[in-house]
Formats: sequence, C-alpha cells, structure tokens
Amino acid sequence: MKKYVFGIDIGGTSVKVGLFNTYGDLVDKWEVKTDVSKHGENILKDIFTSISQREISLDEVLGYGFGVPGPVIGTTVVRCVNLGWENYDLKKHFQEFVDSGFIYVENDANVATLGETWKGAGKAYDHSAMITLGTGVGGGVVSNNRIVEGAFGSAGEFGHIRVVHEDGYLCNCGNHGCLETIASATGIKRVYSEIYEKTTGNPVPERPSAKRIMNEARDGDAISMEAFEKVCYYLGYACSIIAVTTNPAVIIFGGGVSRSGQFLLDNVDKYFRTMLFSPVAETKLVTATLGNDAGMYGAASLVINNG
Amino acid sequence: MKKYVFGIDIGGTSVKVGLFNTYGDLVDKWEVKTDVSKHGENILKDIFTSISQREISLDEVLGYGFGVPGPVIGTTVVRCVNLGWENYDLKKHFQEFVDSGFIYVENDANVATLGETWKGAGKAYDHSAMITLGTGVGGGVVSNNRIVEGAFGSAGEFGHIRVVHEDGYLCNCGNHGCLETIASATGIKRVYSEIYEKTTGNPVPERPSAKRIMNEARDGDAISMEAFEKVCYYLGYACSIIAVTTNPAVIIFGGGVSRSGQFLLDNVDKYFRTMLFSPVAETKLVTATLGNDAGMYGAASLVINNG
Repeated sequence: MKKYVFGIDIGGTSVKVGLFNTYGDLVDKWEVKTDVSKHGENILKDIFTSISQREISLDEVLGYGFGVPGPVIGTTVVRCVNLGWENYDLKKHFQEFVDSGFIYVENDANVATLGETWKGAGKAYDHSAMITLGTGVGGGVVSNNRIVEGAFGSAGEFGHIRVVHEDGYLCNCGNHGCLETIASATGIKRVYSEIYEKTTGNPVPERPSAKRIMNEARDGDAISMEAFEKVCYYLGYACSIIAVTTNPAVIIFGGGVSRSGQFLLDNVDKYFRTMLFSPVAETKLVTATLGNDAGMYGAASLVINNG
Repeated sequence: MKKYVFGIDIGGTSVKVGLFNTYGDLVDKWEVKTDVSKHGENILKDIFTSISQREISLDEVLGYGFGVPGPVIGTTVVRCVNLGWENYDLKKHFQEFVDSGFIYVENDANVATLGETWKGAGKAYDHSAMITLGTGVGGGVVSNNRIVEGAFGSAGEFGHIRVVHEDGYLCNCGNHGCLETIASATGIKRVYSEIYEKTTGNPVPERPSAKRIMNEARDGDAISMEAFEKVCYYLGYACSIIAVTTNPAVIIFGGGVSRSGQFLLDNVDKYFRTMLFSPVAETKLVTATLGNDAGMYGAASLVINNG
C-alpha cells in the first residue's frame, strides 16, 4: 500500500524536502544543505540519506517529484549552473538509491506554478500563470492542470518579455528592455535611482531596497510612488500579453517583491485593465499563498496527479 | 472495424468536410454551403446529409472532429456570430443524426494550428504556435501535440498583443496598438497609407491591397518597403514574446498575407533575431503548408489522437 509521496525542491543553498500523503497533505518538511562540491555528485545521496532516516518504509512511497533550478527535458537536467549539473539524468542517478516509485523532474519555476495551482492561490482554476518577482523575474504556465514546458523549457519566461522598445535597460540575458530590468528587485532599485536623479539633480545617496521603495510608495513618498507606478505599468502590460498568449484564468504573483500584496495587485490591475483584451476580462490577479513551499507541493503533484 | 474519420471545418460561407482514414490520410474532401438562416439550425443537418450520401457506412466511422469560428468550452460553442450559434452544444445536436462515433469540437484557429502541427509545416515538432495573417490576425498554440485552449478560449490570440505603446491605431477589439492593427491585411494598407502621406505630402490615391504592397516591396518600391519593414518589425517582436511565453519550437505563419512566403519569413526573422531570448535561439519561423485544409486535418486529428 502506497501511502507517501516526496516533493523535493532543490535549490542552490538548500534542498526543501516535503513528505506528503497521497491525498496531497503535507505531513512533514525539512531542509538539507545543498553540497555543490564535485559537480553536485553528493546532492541526491544526501537527499536519500535524509529521507531514509525517517520512520517510513520506502516501500510505502508512491514516488518522488523533483524541482530543479534549470531547464529539464524528460528526466534529464539540461544544465544547473548552481549545482554543477549538466546533462544530468536525475531519474537514473536517483534510482541508484531507490528501487521503486515513480520519479518525475521539472524546472523549479514550473513546479512552483503547479504547486500554487494545485493547492495555493490558483486552486480554484485549471489554467494559470505565475510571475515570480525576486532577484530576477521568472514564471511558469499551467494549462489544464499540467505544466506547459515549451520546446526549450522556456515557456513562462516572463522576465524576458521585452516591454520597453527604446532605450531599455540592458538585461542579464543580453537583450534590452526585458521586464526583468524593471520589475525584479534590482530593476525596481534602478528605476527608483533614475527617477531620483532626474527629480533631484543629485545621485541617489544609497540605493534603498525594493521593499523599502514599495513601503515608501505606500506611505506616499513621491519618488517611490513614481517608481512603483512605472513598475506596475509594465507588469500590467506583461499581464495583458500573458492573457492573450497562454490565457490563464489567474495570474499569480510570487517572490519577495510580491509580498507587498494587495497594494501591488491593485496598482498592476489598474494598468492591466487599460490594456486588456475584453474577452479575457475575467482574468484575475492574485498573490501566491504557499511561499517557499510551492515548489515542494508542485513536485509532489507531479507524482500524485501522474503516478 | 473503424476505418474512417471526418474532419469538418465550419466557416461562415462554407463547411469544409474531409474524409480521412484512421492513419490520417485525407481520402476525399468537399464543401457544403453554410446555411446561416434560422440561427444556423440547418448547418449540422446539411453536413450529415452530405456525409450520408457517400459510399461508406457510418458504422465504419471512428468519429467526427469539428472546427468552429468562435470560442468553445468542452463541446459547446460559446458564440459564433457568423453562424447564429450561442451556447450551442454541437455534440448533443450532432448526436441527433449519428448514434456512434467520438465527437470533438474546437475553435477553428486552434484546429488549424493542430493540423499544421500534425501533418503540415510543424510536423517535425511537438510544440508550435501559429499566427494567421488575414483580414484579422489570429493564432493558436499547441503544446505536446495538444491544443492549449486557455481559460477563456483565448490562448494564441496573438493579434491582440499590444505592440505599440504610444499613438497605436485603434483596434476592432477596442484597444490601441494591437498587432492586428499593423499586420492584418487592413493594417498593412493603413501602415502603407500613413507612410505614403508622410513621404509624398499627398493622400494615397487608392489604397493598394496588402498583396500588392508586399509585391512592390519585393520589387524595391521605397514606400512599400518601408511599410513592409515596419510590419515585419512588429511581427518579429510578437514572435520574441511568443518564444518566451508559450515557447514553441516552430512559429507557423498562415493566412493570405503569409503567401509572400520566404520574403516575409526572412524579414520577420531579421527583427526576431535582434529581440530573441538566447536560450530559445533554435525557434524556427516557417509558413503553413496545408492552406485551407489545415482545419480539416486538425479536426480529424482530435479524433485520431484522442479517440
């Protein structure tokens, strides 16, 4: 009798391990340090060791779902710079440790989107998209409760929608004017600094954090408000594009920047509505609810809903 | 023994009926006039009559796939203004005529995309998008050989990606700056007229057709070339967005405007490459190969690949 499923979200500094029952309830969770030495060859062994110390029999495990920080084809990780993996068949390697159970592997942004759609902010919907606003801007797409991976694992790379045509900032990807150059934490600081310098004629004394800029915008500081409005305009624009390309019922905002919650949603929605294709007017904007657990949920869901 | 499948593409003036074997070969095809009188209540009967006059037994039919010019949920046509249908359960109505066989219904742009992906320009790929350049600009998305419908049937509505932020033309949808305002046949004429008037100082004597503008661009006429380049720039931009949202392996151009073929592809690709997210650099641009048969193929594929 299979009772358990593991949802495992592998990050560059730690691995989040979630133990779920087959109904999808999170029973226990813990973290394992990510050992990136020797091209990450110990990562799976460390995960297995930590799992096998728990008081469950591996015969009771229906399967193991993994989220990894890089593109995936089938069960092979194409590349995870953080972990030292390249063309790494995670399933094959993990089968050195376990001799039964399904094994699924997906990109971490995609499993987070799936997790939020399954048990989080999108659970009332079958079609969703997620925009993750952090150091960079990532995302994912779920259609009919399945991840849309895309041909090159780049579906939902919303951070690289070009939103500024002329004089856009240089993006880490090499292009100019990507959403990430404006709506990531770094982008927000850059937008603020530019407005500060234009308004006051002085260089910004020290760059405030994205969080502080958003808090000060809420409190009515003029420069912060102008920066925040600009960020929300371009997020609203990106949402209008997502609405007619993948056409989700709900667009979920995750990542650190999304913690400003309703204040962010209201201001993005204001611009979104001005650019929205009317047949998709019911598209909802919401913030993520599972926080750092979203990836574990999505990884477990790969097993529970496919296994 | 099931030997046959019907792929039926319902349009506002005629219905294209394709008879396929279950291997997906088109055995025969013909057209039936679309009778839009009485809220389209005769359309299915006329299709059935035409099918039942063929020398095959309906017992040999595995199923019937339909493409319709409007949004679809399940087997219900939400709205087809052209046909007079509203909340019309096509499957239920067609079952008044046939008592066996699978019945599938999808939007016409989506089945055309599926058809091209199955047997046409995208047949080497599992992930595709199609942009249809005609009176309007439509499209569709296929992921893992399945149609991505979206929550409101608006996935792949690429004509309504906003591509011009300031002073964009008014679109039929009520927004400004949509791709359709530039890259549809009407849009191309409008772009040409504007450049003509700006360049010569005179109003354009008569608006040439989109086809003529593209032919003259190929022949080196300066105003036509400028108009054509502008259209290709925005198509290239739209492709760069599609590449990071639905992430197809191949973007297929269909519709009348796409008949300029390689000349169009080369010029769109030129701009596409300048805006392309490097991990998706392998994305290919191609023209459709099935012409008006694409919808029949896709509709048949719904049965053959699901039935």
